[in-house]
Amino acid sequence: MMQESANALGIHLRALVEDADGATAQVVPDSRPGSPSVDADMDWLVRGADVLTFEHEHIPADQLERLTGLVPIRPAPEALIYAQDKIAMRRRLQECGIACPAWFTFSTREELAAGARGWSWPLIVKWARGGYDGHGVARVSCVEDAQEWIDNLAEGEELLAEEAVPFTREVAALVVRSPSGQCRSWPLTQTVQEGGICREGLAPAPDLDPALEDRALAMGRRVAEELDVTGVLAVEMFLVEGDDPQVLVNELAMRPHNSGHWTLDGSVTSQFENHLRAVLDLPLGDTSMVAEVACMVNVLGSQLDDPREAYPRVMAAHPGAKIRYYGKGVRPGRKLGHVCAIGSDAQAVAAEARRAAHMLEGANAREGEQQ
Amino acid sequence: MMQESANALGIHLRALVEDADGATAQVVPDSRPGSPSVDADMDWLVRGADVLTFEHEHIPADQLERLTGLVPIRPAPEALIYAQDKIAMRRRLQECGIACPAWFTFSTREELAAGARGWSWPLIVKWARGGYDGHGVARVSCVEDAQEWIDNLAEGEELLAEEAVPFTREVAALVVRSPSGQCRSWPLTQTVQEGGICREGLAPAPDLDPALEDRALAMGRRVAEELDVTGVLAVEMFLVEGDDPQVLVNELAMRPHNSGHWTLDGSVTSQFENHLRAVLDLPLGDTSMVAEVACMVNVLGSQLDDPREAYPRVMAAHPGAKIRYYGKGVRPGRKLGHVCAIGSDAQAVAAEARRAAHMLEGANAREGEQQ
Repeated sequence: MMQESANALGIHLRALVEDADGATAQVVPDSRPGSPSVDADMDWLVRGADVLTFEHEHIPADQLERLTGLVPIRPAPEALIYAQDKIAMRRRLQECGIACPAWFTFSTREELAAGARGWSWPLIVKWARGGYDGHGVARVSCVEDAQEWIDNLAEGEELLAEEAVPFTREVAALVVRSPSGQCRSWPLTQTVQEGGICREGLAPAPDLDPALEDRALAMGRRVAEELDVTGVLAVEMFLVEGDDPQVLVNELAMRPHNSGHWTLDGSVTSQFENHLRAVLDLPLGDTSMVAEVACMVNVLGSQLDDPREAYPRVMAAHPGAKIRYYGKGVRPGRKLGHVCAIGSDAQAVAAEARRAAHMLEGANAREGEQQ
Repeated sequence: MMQESANALGIHLRALVEDADGATAQVVPDSRPGSPSVDADMDWLVRGADVLTFEHEHIPADQLERLTGLVPIRPAPEALIYAQDKIAMRRRLQECGIACPAWFTFSTREELAAGARGWSWPLIVKWARGGYDGHGVARVSCVEDAQEWIDNLAEGEELLAEEAVPFTREVAALVVRSPSGQCRSWPLTQTVQEGGICREGLAPAPDLDPALEDRALAMGRRVAEELDVTGVLAVEMFLVEGDDPQVLVNELAMRPHNSGHWTLDGSVTSQFENHLRAVLDLPLGDTSMVAEVACMVNVLGSQLDDPREAYPRVMAAHPGAKIRYYGKGVRPGRKLGHVCAIGSDAQAVAAEARRAAHMLEGANAREGEQQ
């Protein structure tokens, strides 16, 4: 989706892609298949480039080290590590005094049992590296539940254990920061996760104490500054509302993030445009919303052979819904696209986006006509 | 700009382009240089395609005839002729009883003098075919002024003469219509022309009698229906406001049009997305605005070697301005891009878009800092 903003501004993107027929290759004219582990592929990628940036964080550290000095890398490897390694992230945020769930690391059954002493189960156990969309995160009710991951640890590797926070909701603070230090945030996004996968993003988070929203956004900006992040940073947080409200950092992503896809249709400047501006150290665009409410709902798998088969029905039923289809083949639960709706009433906007997304998933093939 | 909407919806665009390095080739992955006059180029273009459409109207009639039956052509050649040939357009609109400036055709000095008898000079003289951006349109104060064009007429060709309408403003009714007959229009756009080139588009046309706006939009839809247009139709009109207000059709364009570029940032569904939906006979998207006012100002030439040199200044001064740069080389007066601003106050919005566009034109290189 960054290509759209690049087209608009006349910024030339070159992309190293996994697959010559994949979602990125379909829309980036100057792309070629390759691997970030292969020097020649990365040399092709950065030749003549003003800056190197990422659409995911799984880039080998030795490759980033090799390229340092050849091309500006934004976010810098020193920042990116905190989005790559959850244990490094927890250590660093703790040093900065930024609130997180209680945590410890372990690599044996004994360490897990010792660390969890006095805690109530279940705990959340995470891989330090390589997780995404719920992969590498497990709710663990006893030591035994973590056995397989413990057995698969490489020499020197550790797992992360965290308390299961009794959150009242999950939110994401979406921040963008430039090398010059300019920093902007979008209104706080409320997210809904299903099985560890982002299902919905609603902005601004509705019926939220304004002081708590400010606190969450300030925490997001503080993370960006403490970690010297450039580009878009999504700080996923747990909110615990009540007499003693808490804001706890869950995860970090240093790139345009699913929780911010609503900005494409719901704000003056999208996260994709501002990521490009930031990594090029251009002044950041206005992050105001163009509507009172925006809601994005992911299309997760489909009963249709191709979700586009539903276009006649979904477009007829929801002329205001903004549909994005990523050009990926259908697989159960796979993020195939999303729908965004904007308007003034949070419930109505969310209902519209949900209905349109469900139609693209092929659920209730006659739903469109029944409305 | 249609590629952005195609990317969003997962619609595969294939484009025949003039130049392998041109604006379209830079953003359409599946493009190749060629000519609509060359059968092999058009055969490559339409192979396997669901529909053929256009970004300008200068397509040879014999080529369209050859392709009829091979691929759906939208708008159809029978409609497109009225955007290609201004004399055919005037005859047809007159048959439909749609108000136009008074007009006649001529191919000699004597016919021009005879036709203009009883008229007040100057007249407007136009080529029937091939004009664009003020080329092929002249204000003629006497028969002698038209001599060169008369001398250059091919056998059987005619010129079009029209009264110079004492308009109070120029507007464009932007309409989209699908083969199924669904028709939507965006709010009426007020345009400002400089030397026959579109300079600005402001929507909705401010301080306009609502009855007159309705009349203009109804006329736009009526043209779309009478001419059986599919896709986007821009009907450029003269408004004569006063005791006996008049709405007169000036020109037609059957494609996304410069007067509607504001829809990219100012409406729920842009003209580009709705053009794609229409030519594919998909239900049309909501044409509501996302702000009270939107203003687009073209970047016409630049004193800079590259307008992007101004990005740091223009983005710092105008964080809400939406910039589009078309990736064309700088030439005096050439449409290099545009800026759109949205907001609630027409004057403020127009001023912002103008200042940002002027900065990209390199005018007053210190303007950004002075604000």
